[in-house]
Amino acid sequence: MSNKFVAPRGTQDIYGEQSKKWQSLERDARAIAAKYHIEEIRTPIFEHTEVFKRENDASDMVNKEMYTFIDKGDRSLTLRPEATAGISRAFVEHKLYANGKGVQRYFSIGPNFRYERPQKGRMRIFNQFNIEVFSEANPVVDVETIMIGLDYIQKLGIKDFQVVINTLGDKESQKAYRDRLTEYFKPYVDTLCADCKRRYTQNPLRILDCKVDGDKPEVVNAPKSRDSLNETSRVYFETVCSLLDSMHINYRVDDSMVRGLDYYNHTVFEVVSTDPNAGAQSTIFAGGRYSEMVEYFGGPKTDAIGFAIGLERALIYAEMSGTHFDTEDHIDVYGMPRDKESVLSIFKAIQALRHEGFICDFDHDVRSMKAQFKTVDRTHAKVVIICGENERANNQLTLKNIETQQQLQLSLEEGIETIKEWLKGA
Amino acid sequence: MSNKFVAPRGTQDIYGEQSKKWQSLERDARAIAAKYHIEEIRTPIFEHTEVFKRENDASDMVNKEMYTFIDKGDRSLTLRPEATAGISRAFVEHKLYANGKGVQRYFSIGPNFRYERPQKGRMRIFNQFNIEVFSEANPVVDVETIMIGLDYIQKLGIKDFQVVINTLGDKESQKAYRDRLTEYFKPYVDTLCADCKRRYTQNPLRILDCKVDGDKPEVVNAPKSRDSLNETSRVYFETVCSLLDSMHINYRVDDSMVRGLDYYNHTVFEVVSTDPNAGAQSTIFAGGRYSEMVEYFGGPKTDAIGFAIGLERALIYAEMSGTHFDTEDHIDVYGMPRDKESVLSIFKAIQALRHEGFICDFDHDVRSMKAQFKTVDRTHAKVVIICGENERANNQLTLKNIETQQQLQLSLEEGIETIKEWLKGA
Repeated sequence: MSNKFVAPRGTQDIYGEQSKKWQSLERDARAIAAKYHIEEIRTPIFEHTEVFKRENDASDMVNKEMYTFIDKGDRSLTLRPEATAGISRAFVEHKLYANGKGVQRYFSIGPNFRYERPQKGRMRIFNQFNIEVFSEANPVVDVETIMIGLDYIQKLGIKDFQVVINTLGDKESQKAYRDRLTEYFKPYVDTLCADCKRRYTQNPLRILDCKVDGDKPEVVNAPKSRDSLNETSRVYFETVCSLLDSMHINYRVDDSMVRGLDYYNHTVFEVVSTDPNAGAQSTIFAGGRYSEMVEYFGGPKTDAIGFAIGLERALIYAEMSGTHFDTEDHIDVYGMPRDKESVLSIFKAIQALRHEGFICDFDHDVRSMKAQFKTVDRTHAKVVIICGENERANNQLTLKNIETQQQLQLSLEEGIETIKEWLKGA
Repeated sequence: MSNKFVAPRGTQDIYGEQSKKWQSLERDARAIAAKYHIEEIRTPIFEHTEVFKRENDASDMVNKEMYTFIDKGDRSLTLRPEATAGISRAFVEHKLYANGKGVQRYFSIGPNFRYERPQKGRMRIFNQFNIEVFSEANPVVDVETIMIGLDYIQKLGIKDFQVVINTLGDKESQKAYRDRLTEYFKPYVDTLCADCKRRYTQNPLRILDCKVDGDKPEVVNAPKSRDSLNETSRVYFETVCSLLDSMHINYRVDDSMVRGLDYYNHTVFEVVSTDPNAGAQSTIFAGGRYSEMVEYFGGPKTDAIGFAIGLERALIYAEMSGTHFDTEDHIDVYGMPRDKESVLSIFKAIQALRHEGFICDFDHDVRSMKAQFKTVDRTHAKVVIICGENERANNQLTLKNIETQQQLQLSLEEGIETIKEWLKGA
């Protein structure tokens, strides 16, 4: 087998028990979004590259990890590396800011694409449950948004987590901080890695989370954003913290947290696993405020906040916490033809039952009774219908209630009524 | 606004009422798949190009419409143009053929990608509900598979459709037919379009559905596949037809139908709209048998049948048939703070109600009562909770039952119980 005939590196196939787990992950995400009265938005898998590659963006995501290609119409397109930019672009394109609804919240569920080194919980095609909230900057919205994510991970049964927050401050504070970092790193530039040399000019904040230089003392000891906050930014952050207290949410302030995306300001947050088995990829979900994205796409100045939770990783943490996903098969009726001539009768009966809403399957191949009963076991069928020479002669079917072991020979019409009776409330 | 900041040509954003329609389309697809006891499979959005670009494939899809690019690891990858190849690749990679389950059925729902000229019902990123059935070739399976699709479009309320079927015969019959077509087209090759000249060598069948040459008399009058069928293929097709009769499915045999994909053999089918407003894109769903795909990917010889239904188009036909999708907002409780100081009380109450499972929203911005009651109307809230100076002084909330207009002032705990009572069975 050529190695071209496997899923590309960093991607996976989901089937069998795994697909039932994914259905559950998504059902829960939709249920949480519904409780918070959040509308779904779906944006294209690819966008014009400019949607993601914004001027002076120094993030690794934009500079190193994007799947960018030229289409047959000579457009530069990029597979979306995250959801926020596309949703903001759509928000502007369809003038959703003008609908007078006040706070506007959107969720999305779907794949994103980053060319990274695959490892446990980090895939090149990865799926996110994503929330974006467009409204005036309001600490209540910040806390509510964090709580959406907390509700979701708790619904998944994830235990052992910690909310970590920080503030990057408003534009003025950020500029002050960048200037301060530029000044601070000046004597060290030559000692930094090639990426950090680029970051130094584009956005020195990015040096702080460099995988190569991040642990060097001059990086660890760099000035903190806290010290460059203006009054507005300080008060905003204090209100967020006090609201978290009011809502009884445990959190830790980490003033070295800057998040890996360039567009954040004010509140940034990560919810990390405190499970001792968590390993290097300990973030369960993360997000923050941003205020220039909508304007960048040509809309009015609009504050926003959002977060994304990687579903591959959420599944790992849920299972680490001992969450049991029901992955068993549960069908209502299994049809057993005893000979080739009976297949049509079984097929007709099964179709009639499906049209009544029952979950049904049958043996198409007339395998041995033993093989057929093995399928009955595996699928936890509640009722079996059997047809052989005798049943055909009487234009009837044999019904067997697996739980009670009751067995009846009936016409199709009577059989349907009996099965309805048997499975009522089952 | 730069035109880079719009969804790329042939793609769309789905939001608002539209997103509720899509949720409904997918919910129905999952419900139908469940009734037929079909397991979900999810394969990557992109595959190694070789998965789709198989030797001598003459289809337009493979030759003209694929989004192919080189990744940062120098791999040639292609955004999946259809679901069958990826699912078959996964079927082999994970040795799903070896699980002893007999007939194996998979469904998938998700985006596919083809660089085509966009028109109504034809997008460059389009979504499909797809079924693949791996089993011995069995006419019962053919008819059951067609019925899955029919059940789905009927669930969507699509009326006015017709099943059209044909057979391409087995490998021997297909070879005979190709030879016959090669012979037949020999005198016409020079008069055909450039694509058809290529098709003539790769697969002369493809000339029959050429958009340029398809209507020329020499193409219309070309020999039919029917005339090259061997005995096995003829009997197989007759059994399919007689089973369709037994299941009371109206159908028409169209012996010029060859389907646009190269891998089909035996039964091919299309379900087409007979609505007079249908226009050029009249296919609602289509599929067929294939027998060499699993082997191509390195697995054992395995027969299979599948179909895909384009969800963009299914939605168009459902609406054309007058199907009503419920796109209205329906929330349980709306929270109204009367002043800034009351926002926290409302927020706490709403979070408590959300944790009880209610769908809730509230006014974060303390807009005017008029604006807030407009939101209550728009969202069809059943209960309103109000907090102002008076309520705060008493540590209570005012509850209003919108239907009965009953109004009570209660503590949060009492309020939750009252709302549970009010909304019981609502």
